[in-house]
Amino acid sequence: MRPNRVKELWRAGKPVLNGWCALPCSLSAEMVARQGWDTVLVDLQHGGIDEATALHMLQAISTTDAVPFVRPPWLEPGVIMRLLDAGAYGVVCPMVNTRADAELLVSACRYPPQGMRSNGAFRGVMYGGADYVQKANDEIVVLAMIETKEALANVAEIVATPGLDGVYVGPTDLAISLGHGPRIDVADGPIGEAIAHIRKTAHAAGKVSGAHGTQTGYAVQMLTEGFNFITPTADFRALQMGMAATLSGIRDKIPGARR
Amino acid sequence: MRPNRVKELWRAGKPVLNGWCALPCSLSAEMVARQGWDTVLVDLQHGGIDEATALHMLQAISTTDAVPFVRPPWLEPGVIMRLLDAGAYGVVCPMVNTRADAELLVSACRYPPQGMRSNGAFRGVMYGGADYVQKANDEIVVLAMIETKEALANVAEIVATPGLDGVYVGPTDLAISLGHGPRIDVADGPIGEAIAHIRKTAHAAGKVSGAHGTQTGYAVQMLTEGFNFITPTADFRALQMGMAATLSGIRDKIPGARR
Amino acid sequence: MRPNRVKELWRAGKPVLNGWCALPCSLSAEMVARQGWDTVLVDLQHGGIDEATALHMLQAISTTDAVPFVRPPWLEPGVIMRLLDAGAYGVVCPMVNTRADAELLVSACRYPPQGMRSNGAFRGVMYGGADYVQKANDEIVVLAMIETKEALANVAEIVATPGLDGVYVGPTDLAISLGHGPRIDVADGPIGEAIAHIRKTAHAAGKVSGAHGTQTGYAVQMLTEGFNFITPTADFRALQMGMAATLSGIRDKIPGARR
Amino acid sequence: MRPNRVKELWRAGKPVLNGWCALPCSLSAEMVARQGWDTVLVDLQHGGIDEATALHMLQAISTTDAVPFVRPPWLEPGVIMRLLDAGAYGVVCPMVNTRADAELLVSACRYPPQGMRSNGAFRGVMYGGADYVQKANDEIVVLAMIETKEALANVAEIVATPGLDGVYVGPTDLAISLGHGPRIDVADGPIGEAIAHIRKTAHAAGKVSGAHGTQTGYAVQMLTEGFNFITPTADFRALQMGMAATLSGIRDKIPGARR
Amino acid sequence: MRPNRVKELWRAGKPVLNGWCALPCSLSAEMVARQGWDTVLVDLQHGGIDEATALHMLQAISTTDAVPFVRPPWLEPGVIMRLLDAGAYGVVCPMVNTRADAELLVSACRYPPQGMRSNGAFRGVMYGGADYVQKANDEIVVLAMIETKEALANVAEIVATPGLDGVYVGPTDLAISLGHGPRIDVADGPIGEAIAHIRKTAHAAGKVSGAHGTQTGYAVQMLTEGFNFITPTADFRALQMGMAATLSGIRDKIPGARR
Amino acid sequence: MRPNRVKELWRAGKPVLNGWCALPCSLSAEMVARQGWDTVLVDLQHGGIDEATALHMLQAISTTDAVPFVRPPWLEPGVIMRLLDAGAYGVVCPMVNTRADAELLVSACRYPPQGMRSNGAFRGVMYGGADYVQKANDEIVVLAMIETKEALANVAEIVATPGLDGVYVGPTDLAISLGHGPRIDVADGPIGEAIAHIRKTAHAAGKVSGAHGTQTGYAVQMLTEGFNFITPTADFRALQMGMAATLSGIRDKIPGARR
Repeated sequence: MRPNRVKELWRAGKPVLNGWCALPCSLSAEMVARQGWDTVLVDLQHGGIDEATALHMLQAISTTDAVPFVRPPWLEPGVIMRLLDAGAYGVVCPMVNTRADAELLVSACRYPPQGMRSNGAFRGVMYGGADYVQKANDEIVVLAMIETKEALANVAEIVATPGLDGVYVGPTDLAISLGHGPRIDVADGPIGEAIAHIRKTAHAAGKVSGAHGTQTGYAVQMLTEGFNFITPTADFRALQMGMAATLSGIRDKIPGARR
Repeated sequence: MRPNRVKELWRAGKPVLNGWCALPCSLSAEMVARQGWDTVLVDLQHGGIDEATALHMLQAISTTDAVPFVRPPWLEPGVIMRLLDAGAYGVVCPMVNTRADAELLVSACRYPPQGMRSNGAFRGVMYGGADYVQKANDEIVVLAMIETKEALANVAEIVATPGLDGVYVGPTDLAISLGHGPRIDVADGPIGEAIAHIRKTAHAAGKVSGAHGTQTGYAVQMLTEGFNFITPTADFRALQMGMAATLSGIRDKIPGARR
Repeated sequence: MRPNRVKELWRAGKPVLNGWCALPCSLSAEMVARQGWDTVLVDLQHGGIDEATALHMLQAISTTDAVPFVRPPWLEPGVIMRLLDAGAYGVVCPMVNTRADAELLVSACRYPPQGMRSNGAFRGVMYGGADYVQKANDEIVVLAMIETKEALANVAEIVATPGLDGVYVGPTDLAISLGHGPRIDVADGPIGEAIAHIRKTAHAAGKVSGAHGTQTGYAVQMLTEGFNFITPTADFRALQMGMAATLSGIRDKIPGARR
Repeated sequence: MRPNRVKELWRAGKPVLNGWCALPCSLSAEMVARQGWDTVLVDLQHGGIDEATALHMLQAISTTDAVPFVRPPWLEPGVIMRLLDAGAYGVVCPMVNTRADAELLVSACRYPPQGMRSNGAFRGVMYGGADYVQKANDEIVVLAMIETKEALANVAEIVATPGLDGVYVGPTDLAISLGHGPRIDVADGPIGEAIAHIRKTAHAAGKVSGAHGTQTGYAVQMLTEGFNFITPTADFRALQMGMAATLSGIRDKIPGARR
Repeated sequence: MRPNRVKELWRAGKPVLNGWCALPCSLSAEMVARQGWDTVLVDLQHGGIDEATALHMLQAISTTDAVPFVRPPWLEPGVIMRLLDAGAYGVVCPMVNTRADAELLVSACRYPPQGMRSNGAFRGVMYGGADYVQKANDEIVVLAMIETKEALANVAEIVATPGLDGVYVGPTDLAISLGHGPRIDVADGPIGEAIAHIRKTAHAAGKVSGAHGTQTGYAVQMLTEGFNFITPTADFRALQMGMAATLSGIRDKIPGARR
Repeated sequence: MRPNRVKELWRAGKPVLNGWCALPCSLSAEMVARQGWDTVLVDLQHGGIDEATALHMLQAISTTDAVPFVRPPWLEPGVIMRLLDAGAYGVVCPMVNTRADAELLVSACRYPPQGMRSNGAFRGVMYGGADYVQKANDEIVVLAMIETKEALANVAEIVATPGLDGVYVGPTDLAISLGHGPRIDVADGPIGEAIAHIRKTAHAAGKVSGAHGTQTGYAVQMLTEGFNFITPTADFRALQMGMAATLSGIRDKIPGARR
């Protein structure tokens, strides 16, 4: 089976830089993957990507050496298994709030006896190789999103789940759940402390930690503090900011172009 | 019929700022349109957008007050008519090299007696209103791309075509055709002179001129020189540059993240 | 955030007329929305509309001032959240049979602390505006379908669920569940009494009520009796009946055209 | 090869009643086909149907005994051949204005030596049978749309084209081309005379004639006058009228429901 | 309602030969159905087929007399109901491990009072006929996949579920679950004994049994031993083996063509 | 630019083995490409593949080292350019009957000054590399299909076209055009002689030759006789034959399974 380069990077003590795709478009996914990200994640929760489009995006990402990741829409075993069958090498699952949630997630991602994943990885075998079924339990990365007050309270139990590789912070949902509204790129105060607590708890259990932000400086800080996996922006954000900046840049200079 | 705001802007002596969409995705198109561009163009020539996706993109753009434009894949009357039926209020046609090309283009965009456009604007009527057929010949904007040596030689004849609203410079094809390779954002030298010649020839005939670039400064310069329509960037370019800049910004700061 | 006109109508004591779309087609959805319905509902339960198509239909409906509603395929929180992210301003959820069902439904539709909805309303923000997250809990309409014997028994508990705006009668399923087969447009007898009971129970709890039928006369009667929301026909029904009536109209007159 | 029932009906002196589909949706196409039309036509010229959707619609129509017809987007041989390969048993081609146009149309629809159609009818063979290639030239119906002043002048030459089965009136384009605006359902005056002239010229050459309208009465009249093929309405028209009639029927009765 | 030929075959003591489709393509599905299989199954669990594509595939299969079956992605009532609405006449549900699972499956497939299926079989009625709702509970075939150690232990309870027609062996998952890795086409040893036990337990309860393999000889043996339903290969397997055999056949003969 | 391995193979005197895809499905295309073919061709002429699907298929093929080829639907410059933009490294164009046809084909595939190809190879650059525009004229393979009597008469002129890499025999169309019906796998008699003549004429002009068949033995013979490029089967053929063979294999052994 094609080794999961993410695991190699982590074994070497290196961080993983993740490109985030929420636009339902295989061309933009291929373009993101061509920029050199270690992983490229296809987000099926927020962004309009359905499973059929996700398949095309995973194919597009697989034309590069970026490792294909997915965020399933919800903790639904059937959907998670299909995304793995489609060739995803990593799963970042939203709203894992309890130990039971984490165990269900792991079970959906692992073949027996570790889990209940069903055999039939049509594209997994094409992408991974003929020994995919034998080795997938060791190569596929499974991360649980910690993004509620409840999950925060249960994080030690969650990270102790056998077969779970680590956790991934969902910052805006966590902030909302903690009563602070949809804040992002926060490194201090109660939210910052919660995020640091998640990281430390994961590392104490020998698991990895992932962070999510929208500013390069924040991403650098999170990596410096020890996070192993970072999403510093997203396709739609780059698109929106680039288009808006160009437009206002012109309107600033050309008085007649002001609306 | 809903008036074409582009014509209103031009009548007021104002320039039109165009957002360019080449990604086959109705969500990114809606996002581009939300930034405040005067027009948003759906490019069916270069970029992977087919007619079915273009229809969804035109619907998405129509949720805003940006005026929907298209670039058809080629000077093919059947395709151009279908894009107009789908609600496009402007056509920027590639590779119009002769007066005959320009006349064919106009004919495809205008109902008789001015042209041969076929009746049946299913979405044009929904978007434009019940009197669409009566007024479309006056409201739809038709621009011919000047992007070859041959077109440059024929530009005076082309701009004189009745029913043609103006021309649009295709800078990289023009540069290649003139023997300079795929250059862009060029304002001086033989390419810059050719571009200025196109603009002046159009204006002399009472027609509008459009320019295409990738730098805000170039766009400002073209508008300052008198162009009436400018495309200063594109969705895929904003996406690519934003994603690449974030990635390199992190790699510069985190030694372990270098590949 | 763009106000939800449905809530404004209800506050003014006016009924809401709902156009129902079950054909997986963004053009037919736009056409339905153009007829002047107060709301247009995209049905993902019965009719062949998947999430990707629903997104295009919601975009198409958003080119008009009809308020976009959805019926999710089932009481599945992940799917409901994605439909809200896609810009739905109202949810009519099938098969809400217990108070627990109603609470799960509300939770899926509301951000914390009222619910567990996850943040990331990519299109909700585009359609609703920048303050979407702050105001969505107040603007989004949530209706529970009462369509089983069990739900009928629990209707008082269901309507008392905090955050639920009201109920919507599923007449044929209710009739089947009550042992009468798939009857529709019934205003009296045990089914009619059950429907009236649902309406009265909702109103007694300060909630709204919605009815569903296939005849103009029935819709008028239901509105007259006090229902606040009515679906009097559906796209596929209008299509089928119109096509069949024309065909039989000709066959009746042209003997040779009989099959 | 499965016989073309249209030819059998014509040989028996019976008219053919055609259901027209312009909505890009295989479910609505199947629903139209289930109503009992002799033929169901998939319109790729006006209506938003692309080739991929047309394929699904032709499959849907083929679940019934309605004969599948298509209107290609334009007189483009490559597209026409692909639609035939997809199983169309009849072609109604827009904008056939000259004898040369008619000959090109026939050539695209017929295998050598009668034409230049290329072999490879992947779905034609599945639908038609193993001897499809041997018999298709005899079974496929080819109709030329007469819808311009030029075509009207050339109609005698057009109908004389060997291999052409007949003509089909495009009434609104014809009316526009003759200077009367987009009129429809016209049976007298200059437009009515032109339409009658087309019918008579076709019949004099031993060819069939088709008419297009939006009113049952008009369709009955055209069939009574001798037309062999009639389209009396369309899917989008049935949909629009049905939805609008129900809505206004309620608003008329419920004062509070008026906008 | 169109009778389910599968039930007729079983009543006549005949086996049912099932063609398996996992490629998301309506053309390949139509081609498979044209080969003469008694049933053709659309697999939504493993293979990349989403619900929208499944609908097109069911339409394509319905152009033949092959009975359309589906495998839903998981034991999810909402999805199962939608696939039945789309015209499936048989359901083969994965991972039915307990009596409760079997009862949920049956409930999703049967209208009240036998189950909780919701009314609205838009395509079921088109394919099955106007009395579909009255008769569907009797005509639709429901099979539970037995493919885990747990299911094997519970098989007697599962087959006793009222309304369940029978079971279907999932051989590779069963082998993995029993600790033997992903083996297939096994007729003896512990796996073979387990498979025989499933068959015998089903038959003892008056239910049917289905087997799954990849070799003609194995399929013949399973039918000879008494299985009532057999899947002997799949579309992707036929494609892969045929393409590989041709390629190696040439490389064996043409030395220069070796890689 | 990524070198075109096809040109390398030809320079080394080796034949190219081509896998042919006519099913509109990116998964089957990826599966075909994984078998080890030198090239994999996406057929847009016969088979139901539209441009949007072709893009996904080219992405899928690009996950392997098979060189992506296309057959455009017709000699249409706009379509050919878009397929090249989508990353095709080879074009096999149908129905090239004259020197003018061949020149138009070459012009559509080459940037100025050799041709009129328009700049904007969005995916070509991603797949080929940053110097794509500079080198594409040298790397892209262009083959003209010789498949009519007229083309056969003009073959010497066609192969002499500058910029054309060679020819490809369309055997069934050629046989039909020569009056022999749709024959295939013919190596002798007038058709075999015509095919040999095409090969010899191409080689005499220093160009390559391609053949098309359905039998391994025929493919081996054509390669032995000197053809440089061979298509020995197709995806739909492998699928159909494999499914049919398994089915008849069982029916032969199980009397009760006969229909």
